[in-house]
Amino acid sequence: MPEIRKDPVVGRWVIISTERANRPLHYGLNNDSSENGCPFCAGNEDKTPPELLVFRDKTDSSTAAAWNVRVVPNKYPALVAAEGKPVLTGKNEAQSGVGAHEVIIESPHHATDMALLSETQFRVIVRAYHDRMKQLRTDRRFRYILIYKNQGVEAGATLEHVHSQIIALPGVPARVTEEIQGSKDYYELNKRCVFCEMIRGENGARQRLVTENSRFIALCPFAPRFGYEVWILPKTHSSVFEATAEQDAADLGDILRDTLLRMGRCLGNPPFNYFIHSNPLDESANDHYHWHLEIFPKLIQVGGFEWGTGWYIHTVTPEQSARALREAIL
Amino acid sequence: MPEIRKDPVVGRWVIISTERANRPLHYGLNNDSSENGCPFCAGNEDKTPPELLVFRDKTDSSTAAAWNVRVVPNKYPALVAAEGKPVLTGKNEAQSGVGAHEVIIESPHHATDMALLSETQFRVIVRAYHDRMKQLRTDRRFRYILIYKNQGVEAGATLEHVHSQIIALPGVPARVTEEIQGSKDYYELNKRCVFCEMIRGENGARQRLVTENSRFIALCPFAPRFGYEVWILPKTHSSVFEATAEQDAADLGDILRDTLLRMGRCLGNPPFNYFIHSNPLDESANDHYHWHLEIFPKLIQVGGFEWGTGWYIHTVTPEQSARALREAIL
Repeated sequence: MPEIRKDPVVGRWVIISTERANRPLHYGLNNDSSENGCPFCAGNEDKTPPELLVFRDKTDSSTAAAWNVRVVPNKYPALVAAEGKPVLTGKNEAQSGVGAHEVIIESPHHATDMALLSETQFRVIVRAYHDRMKQLRTDRRFRYILIYKNQGVEAGATLEHVHSQIIALPGVPARVTEEIQGSKDYYELNKRCVFCEMIRGENGARQRLVTENSRFIALCPFAPRFGYEVWILPKTHSSVFEATAEQDAADLGDILRDTLLRMGRCLGNPPFNYFIHSNPLDESANDHYHWHLEIFPKLIQVGGFEWGTGWYIHTVTPEQSARALREAIL
Repeated sequence: MPEIRKDPVVGRWVIISTERANRPLHYGLNNDSSENGCPFCAGNEDKTPPELLVFRDKTDSSTAAAWNVRVVPNKYPALVAAEGKPVLTGKNEAQSGVGAHEVIIESPHHATDMALLSETQFRVIVRAYHDRMKQLRTDRRFRYILIYKNQGVEAGATLEHVHSQIIALPGVPARVTEEIQGSKDYYELNKRCVFCEMIRGENGARQRLVTENSRFIALCPFAPRFGYEVWILPKTHSSVFEATAEQDAADLGDILRDTLLRMGRCLGNPPFNYFIHSNPLDESANDHYHWHLEIFPKLIQVGGFEWGTGWYIHTVTPEQSARALREAIL
């Protein structure tokens, strides 16, 4: 049973899941075929736990293996969906790690670069994100659900076959809490959503605009953590991911693909991370928080300065990043 | 002139210093000698700006080059000690980057692993940290000074010759502010310093103790960010680094060396970061905050989960980490 601990100084929560040490580190061992035993490749479905969700190719109903996207429980979960009692460790706070941890397998083939998947595939992936979010939020023990992706070993991936992860947490994480507090404060002061203001800003000057379509915008934030960091936001205010993703799955898939293609072209297919920040489960839709997807290409190493301060040093401006991504010929 | 920007949502400050893009990336090019042009090696003093502080070998007064530790301005500073006016970028907050950025060159020889330096050398390094902190804090434009180290390219180092950095900032960084707030809250509730409580805890159970000497303790924190993360704290309460470091430089140098040797032995000389967290410059010594040095060996890659949450997932407990470090034969 995993354990969740709270740092007594800053209240940071950490998950200790010693079972995860048994994970196979497949990266690079199965470069181009399923024959070497990639558990995510079509034909190897027995190497993962039974699927929670599957999207099949409607044009091919002949074989059960003709799936496009599968969602399965993480075989080495950081958190588990079991009842547990709080663990007491002296004065230090700890509790058992109740949650869920799933893997979204984003292609039946051994693709390693998400950007190269088809438009259709991206749209199915967004639908899978939406459907699992919607399902998991019915479990009242969970307070937050994070969808995230690590592509490339330098970005923390342990398997190279394209996949994302979804994790349901028994608390609202710090990075979300501080965004919500910040946007609430901004709203109280300005009577406007701070993210809507960002979008409005780019509609005018377009200095940090990367790309857009009818429903979404991709921009480089004004004070990013990393060079070429990009945020994708719905143009119409929405604090809940599933609300937008249901109706606008196609546009979201399209802009995500467009952005990743630009990043790959511009930066030489870098390893990257992304995650979706949406409203916590027990808060209703509101006017101050705006869900979004943040993408971090992994170009540099985080060092002592960043760990010690929470500040970041850049050698490239977001305006330069955005311009390069805008001009990446597609 | 560098620019400091503030994220409008969470208030994160970032430094944009495009001049730093011109830094030479020497790593690995000059593996074992000064002949290839390492700017930090004795004999190449003309490749750095003039020194701000130098410690010489007292037993050898014959030659000017017989130094042990030199401190020089960073040739590619993230911040500069020049007056600047705030930069206005629409509604987004930005200001010019006033500060200081220095390099502590920790050996005249081309050493690449700090742990292998002598006891004497460690003590001189601590004295250099102390002296520069004391000097920089006299500049009233600075609000915080961070000493940090990146060893190894995976930990963010661009030069392999052993060195630390010291940066003076015009604001107090988030990671410090939240520690101070947390320890203040703890003090108000418990009438005790939360760090003193940690030390007291290890005096009893010793579960997370790594090593200690008469003045300092090294321990694995209860809810760390990384496996084998170690904090070094003065045993006697002190909120200001320079106050302790002046009288206890030898003991601090000794425990830092001891800890790094254990880490190297136990983990196969991993890349690592460390930094010192002390009271902000404009706050007087107090009973709630306790300065300390945090060491992070770089064993895994930070991924989308950590960036998206500020939480961390571990496959090794701090108790296991501490035990392995304790048992690393020296």
